[in-house]
Amino acid sequence: MFIRPMLALAAALSASLPVHAAEVPYPAGYRAWTHVKSMAILPGHALYEGFGGLHHIYANAKALAGYQSGRFKDGSVIVFDLLEADTSGNALSEGKRKIVGVMHRDAKRYAATGGWGFEGFAAGDPKVRAVGNQAKTACFDCHAPQAARGYVFSSWRE
Amino acid sequence: MFIRPMLALAAALSASLPVHAAEVPYPAGYRAWTHVKSMAILPGHALYEGFGGLHHIYANAKALAGYQSGRFKDGSVIVFDLLEADTSGNALSEGKRKIVGVMHRDAKRYAATGGWGFEGFAAGDPKVRAVGNQAKTACFDCHAPQAARGYVFSSWRE
Repeated sequence: MFIRPMLALAAALSASLPVHAAEVPYPAGYRAWTHVKSMAILPGHALYEGFGGLHHIYANAKALAGYQSGRFKDGSVIVFDLLEADTSGNALSEGKRKIVGVMHRDAKRYAATGGWGFEGFAAGDPKVRAVGNQAKTACFDCHAPQAARGYVFSSWRE
Repeated sequence: MFIRPMLALAAALSASLPVHAAEVPYPAGYRAWTHVKSMAILPGHALYEGFGGLHHIYANAKALAGYQSGRFKDGSVIVFDLLEADTSGNALSEGKRKIVGVMHRDAKRYAATGGWGFEGFAAGDPKVRAVGNQAKTACFDCHAPQAARGYVFSSWRE
């Protein structure tokens, strides 16, 4: 019988693999990627509870090409970098990081959510996943109406 | 006498040189440089008249090293990209470009203004110089108190 050795092999393999094979990687180095645009969500806005603050959108080289061509190839990564907004002194200034949101393109791996993997790293900590396996309800359902634009809300501007 | 030929030579040379030898170049390609930080100057702020709106700071590779080391080498360029801010709908959104401000490091060429050349390109148009030969009064006088920080206001953040 091969069952016992196969189980042992499977156990050995799984110990060396990530727990969630479809986990979205932390977007290492995104602060050096291209800044696409920014926006602040202020008190009174419908999305304030989840997204209040000043966010910056960054794109890696493949995602940047996607904004320009309208087609995002596998490996495109878009970051939604949300900071607290300090609105004292008749200015809006950057505060602490609230979350690093990520869209990571892999048409097969993330087929269930439009070909994009979604994740949020709380306070920008690569170890603290705020979305996990809730990507459909926490992210994709709101992005779905953007299907004609590759499920992306932001646009490139010069 | 050499005067006449020398004048002719000088005229010929000046025709082939830029009118202002110390003109700050337009920062071509800055949208792909590293985004340092952003801030919005709102109505009521002391600098609103000149700088009202949402500005993004971008640094080229040399300037980025300068933020990190505290010493800006010649060739460092920092861009202050000022956009109109639309504050309708409980959000602050990017509007049209108001000006592309530039600090261009060349310790000798711009010795009179702390080693930085200052310029502003109105609406981002490389042909429309808003500062010209007024860099001292229009820019440097406000930057001078930042001498200990290389005359730069912004700081790098992760």
